[in-house]
Amino acid sequence: MNQKRKSFFQSIKERDPAAKSILQIILLYPGVQAVFWYRIAHFFYKINLKFIAYFIMFWVRNILNIEIHPAAKIGKRLFIDHGTGVVIGETTEIGDDVLIYHGVTLGGTGKHQGKRHPTIKNNVIIGAGVKILGPVTIGENSKIGANAVVITDVPSNSTAVGVPAVIKENGKPVSE
Amino acid sequence: MNQKRKSFFQSIKERDPAAKSILQIILLYPGVQAVFWYRIAHFFYKINLKFIAYFIMFWVRNILNIEIHPAAKIGKRLFIDHGTGVVIGETTEIGDDVLIYHGVTLGGTGKHQGKRHPTIKNNVIIGAGVKILGPVTIGENSKIGANAVVITDVPSNSTAVGVPAVIKENGKPVSE
Amino acid sequence: MNQKRKSFFQSIKERDPAAKSILQIILLYPGVQAVFWYRIAHFFYKINLKFIAYFIMFWVRNILNIEIHPAAKIGKRLFIDHGTGVVIGETTEIGDDVLIYHGVTLGGTGKHQGKRHPTIKNNVIIGAGVKILGPVTIGENSKIGANAVVITDVPSNSTAVGVPAVIKENGKPVSE
Repeated sequence: MNQKRKSFFQSIKERDPAAKSILQIILLYPGVQAVFWYRIAHFFYKINLKFIAYFIMFWVRNILNIEIHPAAKIGKRLFIDHGTGVVIGETTEIGDDVLIYHGVTLGGTGKHQGKRHPTIKNNVIIGAGVKILGPVTIGENSKIGANAVVITDVPSNSTAVGVPAVIKENGKPVSE
Repeated sequence: MNQKRKSFFQSIKERDPAAKSILQIILLYPGVQAVFWYRIAHFFYKINLKFIAYFIMFWVRNILNIEIHPAAKIGKRLFIDHGTGVVIGETTEIGDDVLIYHGVTLGGTGKHQGKRHPTIKNNVIIGAGVKILGPVTIGENSKIGANAVVITDVPSNSTAVGVPAVIKENGKPVSE
Repeated sequence: MNQKRKSFFQSIKERDPAAKSILQIILLYPGVQAVFWYRIAHFFYKINLKFIAYFIMFWVRNILNIEIHPAAKIGKRLFIDHGTGVVIGETTEIGDDVLIYHGVTLGGTGKHQGKRHPTIKNNVIIGAGVKILGPVTIGENSKIGANAVVITDVPSNSTAVGVPAVIKENGKPVSE
C-alpha cells in the first residue's frame, strides 16, 4: 500500500464511509482536531515550553474527550475515529497511516520505567475499546479487535482478539 | 411487557433506581438530553440540512460525551444511562424501549457497504462497554453483558457475554 | 504499606510517572479535580441540598468526563488517572489509596435494591475499562486487569482478569 503521496483528507474518506467532505472533516471530526492540537502541543513540548503543551492537551481532552500526551511521537495521517476515551501515553510511538477507534488506550502497566508505552507500526488498525499496555510493539498492517487487551508483542500482518488478546493469524515476524 | 402507553419519564424511573424526579431527569440526565438533540438533528438531516444536523451532534458529542449519527433511526423511549463514550453509527436502527449504558458502540466492521451498523429490536438492554459491530440484529428482549463484543446476530430472549460474545441462553429465533 | 501520613500529591507522583509537579497536578489532572468537586458535592448531598450536589456533578461529568454520584462514599487519596468514562454509582464505597484508571465502571446489575454498587477496599488498583457490577467486594491490595468484568467478590491480595473475570491468584479471604 503506497499511501505516502495520499493526502490526509483523502485517506480519511477512504477509511470512514460516513465522511462526506473536507470541510466536514475539518470542522466536525474531533479526532482530526485532537491530532491537529497535539502537533501544536508537541512543538511546544519539544522547545521545553511543557506547561503550555500540557495546558493545550488538558483542554483538548476536556472538550474533545481525546487524551494525547504531548511527548508522544506520532507519524503521518493518524486518524482517530470518534475518539471519546482515547488515551495515548507519554512514551508511545505511532507510525504512519494508523487508524485508532474510540476508547483505545496506549498505556502503561506500572511495571516499567522510561519507555513504558506501546510502539505501533505503520498501517495498524486498533478497534474500539482496545487496551494496549506496556512497551510492546504492534507490527505493520496488524489489526486489534474491539475490546481486546494486548500486553505482548503482536507480529506484522496479524490479528489479535480477546481479554487478554490471543494472536489469531501469525504473519511474518516484525523485521525491525 | 406492555410499555406502549407508558410515559418516557416513568419508564426511566423504572429503569434507573437513582432517578428521583422528572425535573432531575430533564436537567441532569445527559443521555436524555443527547436523545432530545438527536431528534432535532435527525429532523434537519431528513430535510437535507445535513450540515446543521452534523453540527448539532458534534457539539452534543463534545459536551455530553455521547455520539449519535443524525441519520440513525431510533424508536421510542430509548434511554441512554450515564452515556459517556456511546457511539451510534449512521445506519443503526433501534427499536422501542431500548436501554443502553455508557461506553456502548453500535458500529461498523469496515467490511460492509450501505447498511453496515446493527439493528437493535425492542426491549433490548446493552451493558456498559459493549461493542456491537456490523449489520447484525439483536432480537427482542435480549441482554448483552458488560464489555461483550458482538459480531453475529443474537436471537430474541437471549443473553450474550464475552469477547467475542457467546450466546448463553438461546431463545426463540427472531421472527422478523 | 504505611501510606497514612503520605501527602496526597506525593502519593500521585509515586503512582503516575508522568506527574512532574504539584501545580501540574492541581491544574491539569482531571481525576484530581473531579474528586475535589465530588467532595464539595458530597457535602451538599449530606446536608440534603441534593439538587446542588447533582448539578455540580452533572457539569463535572460533562467537562471532565468523569461521573461520580454525590452519594458515593470515598476514602482518602483516591486517584483517578486519565478518567474519561469513569462512572461511580450511588451506593459505591471506596477505601483509602485506591487507584482507578479511565473507563472504569463501579455500577449496578439492575437486580439489586438498596446497596447495589461495589465496595472497594484499601490499596486496590482497577485497570482501564474495568466494569465491576453489583454489591460485590474487592479485597485489600487486589488488582483488576484492564477491560475485566467483575460480578463476584474478589479476595484480598488477588488479581482478576477476563470477561467475566477469573481470579488468578487467590490470597487470604477478606477478613471483614
